[in-house]
Amino acid sequence: MNALDSLIEALKRLPGVGQKSAQRMAYHLLQHDRTAMPRLAGALTAAVERIKHCERCHTFSETPLCIVCADAKRDRRLLCVVETPADQAALERTGSYLGYYFVLLGRLSPLDGVGTRQIGAAELLARAAEDGVEEVILATSFTAEGEATAHVLAEALRARGIKSTRLARGVPIGSELEYVDLGTIAHALSDRR
Amino acid sequence: MNALDSLIEALKRLPGVGQKSAQRMAYHLLQHDRTAMPRLAGALTAAVERIKHCERCHTFSETPLCIVCADAKRDRRLLCVVETPADQAALERTGSYLGYYFVLLGRLSPLDGVGTRQIGAAELLARAAEDGVEEVILATSFTAEGEATAHVLAEALRARGIKSTRLARGVPIGSELEYVDLGTIAHALSDRR
Ligand SMILES: [Zn+2]
Ligand SMILES: [Zn+2]
Repeated sequence: MNALDSLIEALKRLPGVGQKSAQRMAYHLLQHDRTAMPRLAGALTAAVERIKHCERCHTFSETPLCIVCADAKRDRRLLCVVETPADQAALERTGSYLGYYFVLLGRLSPLDGVGTRQIGAAELLARAAEDGVEEVILATSFTAEGEATAHVLAEALRARGIKSTRLARGVPIGSELEYVDLGTIAHALSDRR
Repeated sequence: MNALDSLIEALKRLPGVGQKSAQRMAYHLLQHDRTAMPRLAGALTAAVERIKHCERCHTFSETPLCIVCADAKRDRRLLCVVETPADQAALERTGSYLGYYFVLLGRLSPLDGVGTRQIGAAELLARAAEDGVEEVILATSFTAEGEATAHVLAEALRARGIKSTRLARGVPIGSELEYVDLGTIAHALSDRR
């Protein structure tokens, strides 16, 4: 395969990019923005090498502990469970949550082979049982799978005597947290039940 | 800037990709498709190093002469002038054109500093004056700038006694050739005036 076709094929691996968009991107870069090419190549290489997962909350991090987990001043009584690092970033941007996080890196989906082991449920339960944690906020998506995940985790937490809450239903049903406007997320957080 | 933010910034240089899409792409790659990252990095690096312009027609090529210019069996009586390598690729895919090409790598746009020198008009006139060329098909876009470019080139060719034609108006007005369906392009080619 020649270099142009290889570039188009590689661009098609990006989410939301089909054949036409990939062609358009490749031609645009080659004709109008060649300096963007080594820059993107370098950013991809650096990202894949440097970005690992936080040992404690599993979000993306370049250091063993992410910036939130490394911050001793946050409210250790609150632990918020989200599906993805993008969801965690959205919650952080609201500025209205001061506790810690646990990132599942997925949600229960038995048909896709995603069970409690894949979302790190045991690590979450151990983390929630740590001294000082008073409430686990289950901020998984309001999709069928997100609700099922919250339900299973809430039951497991309750069996261990740990209180859990769910974000208020201000969050639109069927949507991904990452794409919800910040005001709605902040409101849902204060109304958690 | 951390590696994640650098990656998001670099992805935003892709055409049609804003902040939200770039975030979504970065999170998707890091969480679900890490192997795509070195692959895209490698493809970008190879493309920017290897893809130059054909010495003869100026389209993208990894060799001094592109695959069309290097093919002695094409019809040397026809020379088709297009704005971009993407337009040339679209014409090639119709399978209905067997002559050679000249790629302007732009179109006249005096306000943007794109004049006859930038589109290689002198090289085109020299190429069109070569032995055997009987007709220059001006396949620039049917936009205001594409029409102006075709007009200026047609006048210059006529002054040198070289016949030029324009694609038939089967091509929708205001559209970029690259995005036109192949049947329409093939029809417009056979109806050239
Ligand atoms: Zn962390
Ligand atoms: Zn060529």
